Amino acid sequence: MSLSNGRPYLAIPGPSVIPDVVLQAMHRASPNIYEGELHDLTRSLIPDLKSVAMTDHNVAIYIGNGHAAWEAALSNAIGPGDTVLVLATGRFGIGWGEIATGLGAKVEVIDCGVQSPIDLARAEERLAADTAGQIKAVLAVHVDTSTSVKSDVAGLRGVLDRTGHPALLMADCIASLGCDRFEMDAWGVDIMVAACQKGLMTPAGISFVFFNDKADDAQSARVSRYWDWRPRVDPAVYYQYFAGTAPTHHLYGLRAALDLIKAEGLDAVFARHAKLAQTVWAAIDVWGSDGPMSLNVPNAEHRSHAVTSIAIGSSVGQDLREWTETKCGLTLGIGLGREPEDAYFRIGHMGHVSGHMIMGALGTIDAGLKALNIPHGRGALEAASEVVAGTTERRTNDG
Amino acid sequence: MSLSNGRPYLAIPGPSVIPDVVLQAMHRASPNIYEGELHDLTRSLIPDLKSVAMTDHNVAIYIGNGHAAWEAALSNAIGPGDTVLVLATGRFGIGWGEIATGLGAKVEVIDCGVQSPIDLARAEERLAADTAGQIKAVLAVHVDTSTSVKSDVAGLRGVLDRTGHPALLMADCIASLGCDRFEMDAWGVDIMVAACQKGLMTPAGISFVFFNDKADDAQSARVSRYWDWRPRVDPAVYYQYFAGTAPTHHLYGLRAALDLIKAEGLDAVFARHAKLAQTVWAAIDVWGSDGPMSLNVPNAEHRSHAVTSIAIGSSVGQDLREWTETKCGLTLGIGLGREPEDAYFRIGHMGHVSGHMIMGALGTIDAGLKALNIPHGRGALEAASEVVAGTTERRTNDG
Amino acid sequence: MSLSNGRPYLAIPGPSVIPDVVLQAMHRASPNIYEGELHDLTRSLIPDLKSVAMTDHNVAIYIGNGHAAWEAALSNAIGPGDTVLVLATGRFGIGWGEIATGLGAKVEVIDCGVQSPIDLARAEERLAADTAGQIKAVLAVHVDTSTSVKSDVAGLRGVLDRTGHPALLMADCIASLGCDRFEMDAWGVDIMVAACQKGLMTPAGISFVFFNDKADDAQSARVSRYWDWRPRVDPAVYYQYFAGTAPTHHLYGLRAALDLIKAEGLDAVFARHAKLAQTVWAAIDVWGSDGPMSLNVPNAEHRSHAVTSIAIGSSVGQDLREWTETKCGLTLGIGLGREPEDAYFRIGHMGHVSGHMIMGALGTIDAGLKALNIPHGRGALEAASEVVAGTTERRTNDG
Amino acid sequence: MSLSNGRPYLAIPGPSVIPDVVLQAMHRASPNIYEGELHDLTRSLIPDLKSVAMTDHNVAIYIGNGHAAWEAALSNAIGPGDTVLVLATGRFGIGWGEIATGLGAKVEVIDCGVQSPIDLARAEERLAADTAGQIKAVLAVHVDTSTSVKSDVAGLRGVLDRTGHPALLMADCIASLGCDRFEMDAWGVDIMVAACQKGLMTPAGISFVFFNDKADDAQSARVSRYWDWRPRVDPAVYYQYFAGTAPTHHLYGLRAALDLIKAEGLDAVFARHAKLAQTVWAAIDVWGSDGPMSLNVPNAEHRSHAVTSIAIGSSVGQDLREWTETKCGLTLGIGLGREPEDAYFRIGHMGHVSGHMIMGALGTIDAGLKALNIPHGRGALEAASEVVAGTTERRTNDG
Repeated sequence: MSLSNGRPYLAIPGPSVIPDVVLQAMHRASPNIYEGELHDLTRSLIPDLKSVAMTDHNVAIYIGNGHAAWEAALSNAIGPGDTVLVLATGRFGIGWGEIATGLGAKVEVIDCGVQSPIDLARAEERLAADTAGQIKAVLAVHVDTSTSVKSDVAGLRGVLDRTGHPALLMADCIASLGCDRFEMDAWGVDIMVAACQKGLMTPAGISFVFFNDKADDAQSARVSRYWDWRPRVDPAVYYQYFAGTAPTHHLYGLRAALDLIKAEGLDAVFARHAKLAQTVWAAIDVWGSDGPMSLNVPNAEHRSHAVTSIAIGSSVGQDLREWTETKCGLTLGIGLGREPEDAYFRIGHMGHVSGHMIMGALGTIDAGLKALNIPHGRGALEAASEVVAGTTERRTNDG
Repeated sequence: MSLSNGRPYLAIPGPSVIPDVVLQAMHRASPNIYEGELHDLTRSLIPDLKSVAMTDHNVAIYIGNGHAAWEAALSNAIGPGDTVLVLATGRFGIGWGEIATGLGAKVEVIDCGVQSPIDLARAEERLAADTAGQIKAVLAVHVDTSTSVKSDVAGLRGVLDRTGHPALLMADCIASLGCDRFEMDAWGVDIMVAACQKGLMTPAGISFVFFNDKADDAQSARVSRYWDWRPRVDPAVYYQYFAGTAPTHHLYGLRAALDLIKAEGLDAVFARHAKLAQTVWAAIDVWGSDGPMSLNVPNAEHRSHAVTSIAIGSSVGQDLREWTETKCGLTLGIGLGREPEDAYFRIGHMGHVSGHMIMGALGTIDAGLKALNIPHGRGALEAASEVVAGTTERRTNDG
Repeated sequence: MSLSNGRPYLAIPGPSVIPDVVLQAMHRASPNIYEGELHDLTRSLIPDLKSVAMTDHNVAIYIGNGHAAWEAALSNAIGPGDTVLVLATGRFGIGWGEIATGLGAKVEVIDCGVQSPIDLARAEERLAADTAGQIKAVLAVHVDTSTSVKSDVAGLRGVLDRTGHPALLMADCIASLGCDRFEMDAWGVDIMVAACQKGLMTPAGISFVFFNDKADDAQSARVSRYWDWRPRVDPAVYYQYFAGTAPTHHLYGLRAALDLIKAEGLDAVFARHAKLAQTVWAAIDVWGSDGPMSLNVPNAEHRSHAVTSIAIGSSVGQDLREWTETKCGLTLGIGLGREPEDAYFRIGHMGHVSGHMIMGALGTIDAGLKALNIPHGRGALEAASEVVAGTTERRTNDG
Repeated sequence: MSLSNGRPYLAIPGPSVIPDVVLQAMHRASPNIYEGELHDLTRSLIPDLKSVAMTDHNVAIYIGNGHAAWEAALSNAIGPGDTVLVLATGRFGIGWGEIATGLGAKVEVIDCGVQSPIDLARAEERLAADTAGQIKAVLAVHVDTSTSVKSDVAGLRGVLDRTGHPALLMADCIASLGCDRFEMDAWGVDIMVAACQKGLMTPAGISFVFFNDKADDAQSARVSRYWDWRPRVDPAVYYQYFAGTAPTHHLYGLRAALDLIKAEGLDAVFARHAKLAQTVWAAIDVWGSDGPMSLNVPNAEHRSHAVTSIAIGSSVGQDLREWTETKCGLTLGIGLGREPEDAYFRIGHMGHVSGHMIMGALGTIDAGLKALNIPHGRGALEAASEVVAGTTERRTNDG
């Protein structure tokens, strides 16, 4: 039976579902880039971006993806020969380190595996040993999209403080910003990178580097003109916001997306993501009670509210994804960061999502398990709907 | 907890979910209405509309809603003083009869209730008694949107044939066209009315009157210029298609929608709707096994595949709808046609719908039942997912 | 040389150029039609529509085109056998009368030709002669789109008053509303019809009947349920606004269009149209000073500010239109209402138009005249630009 | 008099007018970035981009603006300490050199002024003197957007060949690609940079580096991971096309834009731009015959077909731009690259433009000259319309 029709649902961990108002705002003629409305709109984005990141410091907007933000942040923060400490919890931590290597840095990686957060004890041991202060920056991915591991960034600040280490604390919030609570200033993060196509619900194409004064004071003399964050946060003329032509349509889209976040309220946004993540986990717990499925991250405290990685057995992940996409119009995320990748899949529950969507995704997966004769515990959907209903009391790490 | 964000899902029985390609096609400048592309596009719609209705005869397109099509069809078919027999299974059958009354017809109603289809025996009895052939037309709603009752239109043709009655057989397929199988020519329907905003997945605003040669031969001499179907199906100049300016943007939208139906295939479209309807019923059967919920139409053979009406108890229907809309972004249809209306709700599963959407709607209802402490049987979602999976063998009246 | 690319410009007398904000507003999911935002939005349209028509009375919205509004108005105002007096200045006056004929009225036409306005003396003569008051309604087209003749509707009220004739004064403002000044109440108009795709800048598909208490008191007992304007202006339940499903997307579009008009201010809208019309006339006067081109309406007082009909010689009108469309992307209106139609063309300058657009249209026509070796006076564009500049003092009938 | 309404027309030299089909294509949900349609679409862009650039070699797509492409190209082509020769004809040549400086290069500038093209004799003199071959790359802007000067890039290749100099020939076609004829391979260009928001008619946000094998062989070992063009042209996995998440919506938009170019044909596109540029020049020649206006570039052979810079006198440029924008909805480009900037303005006639648009822009400027009492020769618009008509024989440097 064909179920080919119907609105497709992209439930991958980014790009996420784009609100109609964002697309409407982008469906317009190009504005004048030299004066007028676009300038006001651009300026209006800055405080709202900082509000989402919970910082009073600076944000530079880059036309680019997350990798561009990685390179931009590192280009400002470090120079060739500097030492960088990467605390990896998945593929994206490793990838950020590779960008640093490409920029001439000496990169040390503490690999914390793919199922648990950054090991603060190992980080502390290494930083304490660096009595010469050679480590210029510590790179930590808040939520690694590949594994859905969430790390304790505030705890890492504690480590730096306890060891008195002067390294810059750099956080990657590409997957988490606007989904998992993140408090840049309160948590003592010096540099944070993010992108627009996940919690910020805008088509892929712009990314962000947030940085504080300490980071700015440490800016590399070697930073290129294009990556230099200074003109971008304090432009003498408008085009310096973007080192050239502005990403006009993305700015209109982002404005609409930030308006949605403001209207809902950041705390409500976080609470919604927490609840929907718990909804997903509830189902997986039941499915996994009698079959091969399991949450990649055993400890709920260490799981993101934006994405969930699930193990299900070699080739089965791939089969299930194909079934849900071709039979029901639901596209799930591929496995990433653990081999064999086809033994995993990921559910994105970030951004413009709500209860009916998550229940639809879970219901489709349940049907796929049945259609493909994949063993699974019964009652998963009902466990999930209980979370949506609020009739279960589940511990959450979001308060 | 706020769940205010996320893509809204309108699961009412029309207007239905509009495909993105339809909206894209409508987002355009007005075309020249006197020559060129629009003329070709308009002509291309005719065979495809007839194909969806399974007829080789005529279709007139009206700018209007379903009520406009009702009045247009009646204005052509009958004149003041004519007698019309309405076979009602819900509010919309009654409504069509009121339009006939407004046109000066004598209207007789056989009310078949709100839970079962047209009573062919009563119809036969009445028609057989009309030996003078005073009944000019028999009005039958294929699927009454208010009750979700589906009637046996082919059976009604049998009644007319058996009684040798010359009345025109007029069918309302507003809710069913493109969802529930309907074969205009094979079933001997003389006039059929439909609209664009349900199975045809286009924003409300145009409707259709299909008619065969018998109906045309019987055309009322009193039909007005605007309602006259003849110039609309055989225009000497283009503007006569619409008795004036064409509904330009709707035509582009409808073209895109018909392309979707062609690409999927009409049989596949019907099969998809059948399966999704059965998915809904499976859940309701379980919920209703231990609580107040019940399908409005007891017999599955008599249920539409486009919409399902559900009884749940006074004020509870209203409460449930409010919960799903405000907490999860799912808008369900209000009760209609049975008192008290707040004891009912309806799920639209027509048009651009797929497995993940229906499972999302059901999952949300399940959560609402729990949140509101409405008694219900357990396991409804799993029963539904089994239908989507195809692992249950359920009898269907669609083969 | 190909000039095939570039944004097309539809300069026909309706549908007119649609503002981007209108199309954006229509690019959206269907709303709930039973409650919520759509209801508020619909109600908000009423005062703004009445403001554009300068009336404090009633407006009924119909899903349909101008012909639908014609039939709707007549269905309410007259019954079979009533006498109607049509004062024709072009094809559309004649057409409205044909609709009346189709409804069973006795239609008398005073044909005032195609180059001059309604002949008030002839109208007065006829009305004075109708001492029995058999004429139920007088039909006057404010601006006949086919000829671009504008008539003196206030003067017609004077005629009715002087003769003491009780007939309803019905005006067709389809081409003029929102372009040429029209004051329904001050001018004593009882019924006025309009549509959305011209001065109201919305895709074709909805039209309007404005009426006052005198008209309502005279409502025909035979009006059909669908055309009946009473539930539409005083609905007990929402769906009665439209006698069925609302034209959802058009309502959103119209809302955006009316917001544009409010923001500019109705007087400014009229002044803009006046100036742009004078710009067109200035060019044509010069072109016509040495060649076949001439304004269809000799007297500027009798010309519409929304559309201009131009004579240019048999087949030449057609040739010119083809050249501007295929070489420069400018679509002009076909000749209409005078034979041979290919000797005429029309320029629409209604709705969402501004100086650069009109100068672009005129510049393209100038190029076409040269390319096709059509004799014409030199200096037309400069005469036009002087009007745009405001450096000429031209008499206007709107001033 | 207010002329505030009407479709705005952005006639700046980029971003240019975006075709509706491009915006329609971008108004869509995010696609799966890991497999499926997006991958096919991306691959389809490569040959078409190369076709527009007339090259058989490589193209790397960057999420970014023109400055990003500048930095990307230089990051691949040169390393710190390398010498670069900039041949400047305006602000953007200077700017590209500044990017090179920022990357640690030694930058030599031969400033050729702002009204004439690259001085091939001076270039030849300098290259001949570099017997040690220290100049690693020669940077030439094909069309400098600030001055509208077009240089002879093929001639520059001749200089390199005659002097036997091994330097890479790098060309900036940001303003010219798809407007002014450019033949990368035939002209011996090693690296070419471009962006999407001008001749490619797509919202600002992606840019391009084309390069041949010689350039690739000379790739800097110091190139960063993000700028490295190799994975982008020969990706092992899809995400390497963009070093991370793809700019999904821009790719859909660009696909639609390239389809337009293919449909028109590249030669026809160039011919259209040539004719429209000549149309602009014809008007300016006449205006300038009796007043302060003059074309910035005296020699027509040295003028771009994409943009025209015009001198008009201190503060007058600014006044004129304000008048056309606020009175007629036409936004002209600010003066750039010559002081005082308010003595200049620029007209963009690149991309999605046609005869009616250019005539509209010129007609509006003519009105502005009159309104502001700026002296000007009479007959400019008629001179322009003669070019559009093809009734003048003007020498063109486009053959």
